[in-house]
Amino acid sequence: MNFLFLNGPNLNLLGKREPNIYGTVDFDSFMVDLRQAYPAHTLAYLQTNHEGELIDQVQQAAGNFDGIILNPGGFAHTSVALADALRMRQVAVVEVHISNIFGREEFRHRSLTAAACTGCITGFGLAGYRIALDSLVNGLAGK
Amino acid sequence: MNFLFLNGPNLNLLGKREPNIYGTVDFDSFMVDLRQAYPAHTLAYLQTNHEGELIDQVQQAAGNFDGIILNPGGFAHTSVALADALRMRQVAVVEVHISNIFGREEFRHRSLTAAACTGCITGFGLAGYRIALDSLVNGLAGK
Amino acid sequence: MNFLFLNGPNLNLLGKREPNIYGTVDFDSFMVDLRQAYPAHTLAYLQTNHEGELIDQVQQAAGNFDGIILNPGGFAHTSVALADALRMRQVAVVEVHISNIFGREEFRHRSLTAAACTGCITGFGLAGYRIALDSLVNGLAGK
Amino acid sequence: MNFLFLNGPNLNLLGKREPNIYGTVDFDSFMVDLRQAYPAHTLAYLQTNHEGELIDQVQQAAGNFDGIILNPGGFAHTSVALADALRMRQVAVVEVHISNIFGREEFRHRSLTAAACTGCITGFGLAGYRIALDSLVNGLAGK
Amino acid sequence: MNFLFLNGPNLNLLGKREPNIYGTVDFDSFMVDLRQAYPAHTLAYLQTNHEGELIDQVQQAAGNFDGIILNPGGFAHTSVALADALRMRQVAVVEVHISNIFGREEFRHRSLTAAACTGCITGFGLAGYRIALDSLVNGLAGK
Amino acid sequence: MNFLFLNGPNLNLLGKREPNIYGTVDFDSFMVDLRQAYPAHTLAYLQTNHEGELIDQVQQAAGNFDGIILNPGGFAHTSVALADALRMRQVAVVEVHISNIFGREEFRHRSLTAAACTGCITGFGLAGYRIALDSLVNGLAGK
Amino acid sequence: MNFLFLNGPNLNLLGKREPNIYGTVDFDSFMVDLRQAYPAHTLAYLQTNHEGELIDQVQQAAGNFDGIILNPGGFAHTSVALADALRMRQVAVVEVHISNIFGREEFRHRSLTAAACTGCITGFGLAGYRIALDSLVNGLAGK
Amino acid sequence: MNFLFLNGPNLNLLGKREPNIYGTVDFDSFMVDLRQAYPAHTLAYLQTNHEGELIDQVQQAAGNFDGIILNPGGFAHTSVALADALRMRQVAVVEVHISNIFGREEFRHRSLTAAACTGCITGFGLAGYRIALDSLVNGLAGK
Amino acid sequence: MNFLFLNGPNLNLLGKREPNIYGTVDFDSFMVDLRQAYPAHTLAYLQTNHEGELIDQVQQAAGNFDGIILNPGGFAHTSVALADALRMRQVAVVEVHISNIFGREEFRHRSLTAAACTGCITGFGLAGYRIALDSLVNGLAGK
Amino acid sequence: MNFLFLNGPNLNLLGKREPNIYGTVDFDSFMVDLRQAYPAHTLAYLQTNHEGELIDQVQQAAGNFDGIILNPGGFAHTSVALADALRMRQVAVVEVHISNIFGREEFRHRSLTAAACTGCITGFGLAGYRIALDSLVNGLAGK
Amino acid sequence: MNFLFLNGPNLNLLGKREPNIYGTVDFDSFMVDLRQAYPAHTLAYLQTNHEGELIDQVQQAAGNFDGIILNPGGFAHTSVALADALRMRQVAVVEVHISNIFGREEFRHRSLTAAACTGCITGFGLAGYRIALDSLVNGLAGK
Amino acid sequence: MNFLFLNGPNLNLLGKREPNIYGTVDFDSFMVDLRQAYPAHTLAYLQTNHEGELIDQVQQAAGNFDGIILNPGGFAHTSVALADALRMRQVAVVEVHISNIFGREEFRHRSLTAAACTGCITGFGLAGYRIALDSLVNGLAGK
Repeated sequence: MNFLFLNGPNLNLLGKREPNIYGTVDFDSFMVDLRQAYPAHTLAYLQTNHEGELIDQVQQAAGNFDGIILNPGGFAHTSVALADALRMRQVAVVEVHISNIFGREEFRHRSLTAAACTGCITGFGLAGYRIALDSLVNGLAGK
Repeated sequence: MNFLFLNGPNLNLLGKREPNIYGTVDFDSFMVDLRQAYPAHTLAYLQTNHEGELIDQVQQAAGNFDGIILNPGGFAHTSVALADALRMRQVAVVEVHISNIFGREEFRHRSLTAAACTGCITGFGLAGYRIALDSLVNGLAGK
Repeated sequence: MNFLFLNGPNLNLLGKREPNIYGTVDFDSFMVDLRQAYPAHTLAYLQTNHEGELIDQVQQAAGNFDGIILNPGGFAHTSVALADALRMRQVAVVEVHISNIFGREEFRHRSLTAAACTGCITGFGLAGYRIALDSLVNGLAGK
Repeated sequence: MNFLFLNGPNLNLLGKREPNIYGTVDFDSFMVDLRQAYPAHTLAYLQTNHEGELIDQVQQAAGNFDGIILNPGGFAHTSVALADALRMRQVAVVEVHISNIFGREEFRHRSLTAAACTGCITGFGLAGYRIALDSLVNGLAGK
Repeated sequence: MNFLFLNGPNLNLLGKREPNIYGTVDFDSFMVDLRQAYPAHTLAYLQTNHEGELIDQVQQAAGNFDGIILNPGGFAHTSVALADALRMRQVAVVEVHISNIFGREEFRHRSLTAAACTGCITGFGLAGYRIALDSLVNGLAGK
Repeated sequence: MNFLFLNGPNLNLLGKREPNIYGTVDFDSFMVDLRQAYPAHTLAYLQTNHEGELIDQVQQAAGNFDGIILNPGGFAHTSVALADALRMRQVAVVEVHISNIFGREEFRHRSLTAAACTGCITGFGLAGYRIALDSLVNGLAGK
Repeated sequence: MNFLFLNGPNLNLLGKREPNIYGTVDFDSFMVDLRQAYPAHTLAYLQTNHEGELIDQVQQAAGNFDGIILNPGGFAHTSVALADALRMRQVAVVEVHISNIFGREEFRHRSLTAAACTGCITGFGLAGYRIALDSLVNGLAGK
Repeated sequence: MNFLFLNGPNLNLLGKREPNIYGTVDFDSFMVDLRQAYPAHTLAYLQTNHEGELIDQVQQAAGNFDGIILNPGGFAHTSVALADALRMRQVAVVEVHISNIFGREEFRHRSLTAAACTGCITGFGLAGYRIALDSLVNGLAGK
Repeated sequence: MNFLFLNGPNLNLLGKREPNIYGTVDFDSFMVDLRQAYPAHTLAYLQTNHEGELIDQVQQAAGNFDGIILNPGGFAHTSVALADALRMRQVAVVEVHISNIFGREEFRHRSLTAAACTGCITGFGLAGYRIALDSLVNGLAGK
Repeated sequence: MNFLFLNGPNLNLLGKREPNIYGTVDFDSFMVDLRQAYPAHTLAYLQTNHEGELIDQVQQAAGNFDGIILNPGGFAHTSVALADALRMRQVAVVEVHISNIFGREEFRHRSLTAAACTGCITGFGLAGYRIALDSLVNGLAGK
Repeated sequence: MNFLFLNGPNLNLLGKREPNIYGTVDFDSFMVDLRQAYPAHTLAYLQTNHEGELIDQVQQAAGNFDGIILNPGGFAHTSVALADALRMRQVAVVEVHISNIFGREEFRHRSLTAAACTGCITGFGLAGYRIALDSLVNGLAGK
Repeated sequence: MNFLFLNGPNLNLLGKREPNIYGTVDFDSFMVDLRQAYPAHTLAYLQTNHEGELIDQVQQAAGNFDGIILNPGGFAHTSVALADALRMRQVAVVEVHISNIFGREEFRHRSLTAAACTGCITGFGLAGYRIALDSLVNGLAGK
C-alpha cells in the first residue's frame, strides 16, 4: 500500500532546533528507519510551510495513496480551508501531533482539521506517526 | 506486563444501545478477544459511572499496573478533579475516545483530562483501545 | 405501571431546611400521599447525592420501570455524563425542578440533562412531580 | 373558571406546515376537543404574531381570567418587554413550549419570559397545553 | 408571476432622509420604474415598521405570490420570530440589504432571517432589489 | 412649542401595579399636572406596547413636534429597528428611564436607543420627564 | 443650599483643547455664569485627575454639601473603588457626562459609578451640569 | 468588458465530490456555458488553494479587469490579509458563496472579506456567479 | 468541641507525590500533631475522592460537629451540587486551599463552594488548616 | 516584630456607615484593642483611598516591616499596578477581605492582588485581620 | 530640545529587585549615562506610582517639553483616564515597555494608552527608552 | 552586517494606493535611500503575499542574516504557523507596523507574531523600519 506523510509548517526543523524539546532525530532519518521497518509499503514524505500546498496534496491524494498521515502544525488551529479540503477527502487521514495539544496554550486545545479527519493521535512524540501508520496498515482507521 | 482498561460513564452500554452508532460489539466480548491477542500481558478491565471511582483507580494504579488505557467518557470535558488525579499519576495513561471528539458538539472539543495524560487517541472506534495498548506494549507512550 | 421517582443532590433535605423557601413537607410524606392518590401504580423512590448513582439508576430503569420522574438538582447544570446516560434512555424521563430555574442565578438557566429528557416541568413546587406523573400515566410524555 | 390560551408568532400554522415535525392537528381543532373535555371552564383562545398584542393581552387579563397558558414562540428568547409585562402580571401564567427548547439551538435554551411566569412546561407537544391547564384547574400553579 | 416586495422598519424614509447615504430616490418611485421594466409580472409592495406585520405577510404569501423580496431592516439582526416564520415559508424569499452589512457595526454582521431565506444579496444599494427580482424571474433562487 | 411624550411597553401600568416600586401616581394624572405647569406649551402623550407604533411615531414627529420625550421601556435594550428610526430623527429626542438602569440587571445597563437620542436621563423617577421637558423648553438639548 | 461640582480627569482642559468637540467655554467661566444664575446657592467646584481624591471628596461631602454633581470622566467605566464610595454616600449625587456615552466606544456604554448615584444625565453638553443642578435645587433627585 | 472569476480553496472539486450537496456540474463546464451566454465579454477564470495567490490576483486585477467575481471559500472567515488586499482594490469585486453562509456553522456566518467588497451574494448555488456577473455587466455594483 | 476535617479529591496523596510542591508531610501525620496541639477538642478526619460523599458528610454534620474545615479540591471550581449542600449547612464551614488559587490557572480563580461557606483561607500551605481551626475554636467564623 | 495594617479605599468608613452590614466598630478602635492584645509587637496602621499610595507603602515596607496585612478594597479587582508592586514585595503580605468576596457580585470573585500575596483570608469580618496577624506572628505565612 | 521621561508604577524599583529579570542597572544611573550621551538636549525624569500624577504630567507637558517618553507600567492595560489625557496631548508621546508585552500574560497584550500615543516600542529592555529618544530627536515620531 | 527586510501581504502597494493614508513613497525607493544611509551594511529586501513564503524566509535566515526586520501585515493577527516559526528563530527579529495597531480595529490590537519576536515597533510610519534597523545595528535588540 502507498501512504503519504504530510507535514505542515516548521516540522522541517525537527531535530535541528530546540533539541531539548523535540529531540535530536530529524524527520528524514526517521523516515529512513520507518521505510526499513515497513518494507512492504511505499511511504512518501512531503513537508511544506504553505497552507495551499497542504490543501493541494490532500486533494491529489485520491487515487494515489491509500491513506495520509497528516501533521498540520499550527494550521490545525486556524485553517477553515484545510478543514474543508479534509471534509472532501476520499482516503483515510490520521492527524498526528507530536506534543500533547491539550496540555499546551489554550488556542492549541482545539483542532479544526482533526474534526474532518478519521481520527487524531496526540502526545506520543515521533512515535505518534508510527502509531498512525499502524492504524492504517491494520485497517483500523476506517475510510 | 499488567494494564488496566478503565472505562467511565455509559461505556457499559456499548453494543447494547444505539447499535447504529456504536456497533453491536459489547466491551466484555471485546476484552475477551483482546486478551487472546495479547497472551503475554494481563489486561484488567473496570467500568464505572462514578467520577470518584475513576479517581480512586487512577491513584491505586501506581505499583499495580504498567499503564492505563482510560476512556473518561463525559468526565473528560468537566472533571477538574480527575484531571488533577492524572497529573499526579505514576504510570503512563493513554486517553481513548471512541468517536472523534473534535467533530462533535462544541463542549466535547476540549478534554481537561487528556491534558494530564501521556497522549490521546480519538476517532478510531473500539480499535482506539487496541492502538493505545500497542503504544504501551511497545514503549511508545513514555511515562 | 411502575414509575421511578429519582431525586438528586440535597433533595433529601426538603422540608427539613429552609422551610420558608421549600415548605415544611418532606419528600417521604409527599410520596405516601402520592401513592394513596395513585393506588393503581407502583411508585418507587430513590434519592442520592451521587452523580454516578443517578447514572446507574437511569441505565437500570430499562425493563424495570415505565417511566422516570427525575430531579437532577445541581447536576442538571453541569453533568455531561448524566445527560449522556439520558440520551441512551429506553423509557420516558420527565425532568422536574421545584423552583423556576429560569428565574434564578444565570448558571441555573440552562439544563444539560433536560435536553436529553422527554420534557421538563419547572416552577410548580412539589406539585411539579404530580404534574409529571400525570403526564406519564396519561401517556402524554411520548417515549 | 376562565382561562386564556395565548399563542405567539407562527403558532397559527400548527398542523398546516411541517406536519412531520408538528403533527397534523391544527390548534383550532385542538381547542374544540379541549373545551369538550373541560365543560365546566371557559377557555378563550387568541393567537397573534405581534409582540405588542401579547403584552396588551397579558395586561388585560387581570380581572378577566383566572390564569393564562402562554406560548410566546420566538419572543421567549428575545423580548424584555414581554417579560416585563409578565413580571407585573396579576394572574398565574404557565409558559408552554411544544418542543423541548433545551434540546434545540443554543439561543432557544433560555427563556426570558419563563423567568417571569409561574412555571414552564416544555417538550410535551400539544399535550403540554393540557398539562398546563390541569395545573391551573387543580390550583397547582400558585398565583 | 406575482412577487411581493416586503420592506421592514425605516425603509419608508428612503430618499427622504440622509440623501448623502441613501440617495434621493424614494421607494415608491423606484417601484414605478421597476413595474415598467417588468410589465409581464405583478409587483406588489408593502412597507411596515411592525415585526408582527412582516410575519403576517410572510405567512400569507403562500398561494398569493411566487416569491418575496424581503428587506427586514433592523429585524434581520434580532428577530427569532420572523426567522421562524421564514423557516416555514412555502415560496422563495430573497433577502436584500441596501448597504453592505458585513462592513457596518458588529451587530449587523449576522442575519438571523437570512439563514431562513433562499439567499441574500447585500451591498448593491437599491439595485439589490432588481438583482433579487431577476433571480426569482429567472428561476435562479430555488424554492 | 409642541412636545410629544412617548411611552413604550408597560408604562401604562404606572401607578396601578407595584406601587411600592413605582409610586401611586398614574401617568395620566402626571400629564394633567404637567400641562398646568407648562401652559405655554402643547404636550401630547401617547403610550403603546407595540415597537412598530413607537417607530411610526418617531418618524411622524418631524414637522409636528419640536421635541420628543421618549421612554422606550424594555425596547431600549433590544430594538435595533427603533434605534435606526431615532438615528434618522429630525427633532431632538430625550430618552428617559424612571429607574436607574445602570443599577439594575446587567442586560438593562446599555441602551441601544439612547445612543441615537440627543441625551438620556435615568434614575429620577417621574421627575425625569419634567427634567427632560425643561431641557427641551430651555433649548438645552440641541437638535 | 450648598452644592459641590466635582470633575474627574481631563475635564480641566475643557475649552482649551479640541474646541471643535468640546466648545470654547472653559469650566471656570461656566461656573462664574452658573453662580450668577443661582445667587441663592453656594456652588463649590473642584477638579482632579486623581481617583483617590474623588473618593476623598465624596466621603467628605456628608454634612458639608446638600448634593454633588459628579462627572467622573474615564473613571466611570473602570473604578470599583469610586463606585463603592458612592454606594456609601449620604447626599444625593447626580452623575453628568458631557457627551452621550451610549453613542461612543463600547467600553464607555456602561458606568460603574452611575449605578451607585441617584441618577445620570448624559449627552447634553455643558448644559447637563445645569440640568443636574436644577434637579437638586428642585428636590427632584431624591437622596 | 473583461471579468475575472476568482475561486478560492476546494472550489476546483465542484461537481466531482459530494454531488448530493454541490451538484454534478463542474466549474469548467459552467464557465463554458457562461462564456457562450456572454459573448460580448471576456471571462477569465482562475482557481487556487493558496491565500497568497488570491491576494496576488486581487492586486494585479487593477488595469486588467473591469470587475472580479470572488469566491474566497474558507478564507472568507479567517483572512485579514485578503480582506486588506480587497480594501485597496481598484475595481468592483462581488463576493459569491454557493451555499447560504448564514444557515451553516456559526463560524461561517461572518465574512471578513465581504466587508471589503462591493457586495455579497450568498445562497443561490452556481447561479450566484451569474447573478454577480449580471450586476457587473449592468453597472449595478458601483466601483 | 467537635470538628470535622473534610478533604476532597487527591488530598490523600499529600506528602506522597510531588514533594517538591506539596512537601513531605502526609495528612495523617499532620492530624496526629494537630490533635496533640488541641487536646481539648475532638478532630475527626475524612478524605474522599467522591463528590457525593462530600455532600453526604456536609449534610450529616448538623448535630454531630461544631464546625467543618473543608478542602473541596477540584470540586471547588465545578460543583454546583456541593455548593447547594453548603448553602443549606447548619454549622460554620471554613474552606481551605493549600495553594494560592488566585495565582494558579484561570479556572481555579473562582470557587463555587467558597461562596456558600463562612469564609475561605487560601495560600498558607498545610498551615491553612490550623488557621481555619483557630478561627472556629475562637468563635471568629460566625455560623 | 513590626507589622503594617494597610487599608484601601472606603475602609475608613467602617463602623460609621451602613452599620447593619459592617457593624458599629470603627477601625481605629479595633486597632486599639488589637495593640493591647499583641503587646509584644508594633502594629502600624494606614488607610488611604489612593491606589498610588498603596503601591508606595508596599514598596517602602521592605526593611521597615516584618509583614503586611492588606485589604485593598475595590482595587483588588482592578489594579494591575498594585498587583505588580506586590509581585516585587520582600515581606509576607496577607490579603484580607471583610466580606466573603466569592459570595458577592461576579466582578468581586477574582482578586488580581491576592494572586501576588502570600495568601488570602476572606469572609471572617473584622476577625479576618486578627487571623491574618496570627498567621504572620506564628510564622505560618511563609515569605 | 527638552524631553520628559515619565515612568509609571513600580519602575522606581528597576535594578533593585528581581535583577535576574530586569538587570542590575537602576533608572537613575541610566539617566546619567543618557544625559551624557545627549549633551545637546535636556532630559527630565519623573517616576510616580500615582495614575493621577501621570495624567497631570501629560497635561502640563504642553509648552514645556518637545516630547514625552512614557512607560505607563500596569496602567497601560487599565487606565481609560490616562488614555483620554493622551488623546488630548499636544506633543509627541512614545510609549515604551521594557519587556515584550505581547509575550506575557493575556491581560498585558493590549495597551489602552498606546492607542493614544504616537507610537509604541516594546521588548528592547532599557534600550527601548534610547530608541524612543532617538525617534523624537530625529523627528521620526510625528506629533 | 547583513539584514533582511521582510514585508508581508499588501505592503508592495505602499506609495501606490491610498496615498492620503500611506504617503507617496514606495518601498523600493525607501530601500534605495536606506542603503545609501547605511553603506557599511547589506540590506536585503523581500515582499510576499504568501504566509508560507514568510515562514520559509524566517527559517532560512539563520546563518545568512544578522537580523530581520519583519512587517507581517495582516498575518500578525492570525498566523499561529508564522509565530511558531519565529519562536524557533536563531537571529534577532524586530516586528514593525507602519500604523499604530493599538489605535485601529479591535482585531489588530494583538499580534501573535510579535510575541515571538525580540521586540515590536508600531506607529512610526516608514520611519519604524529605520528605527528597527538602528536597534539591530547598535546591538540593542538582543538575540
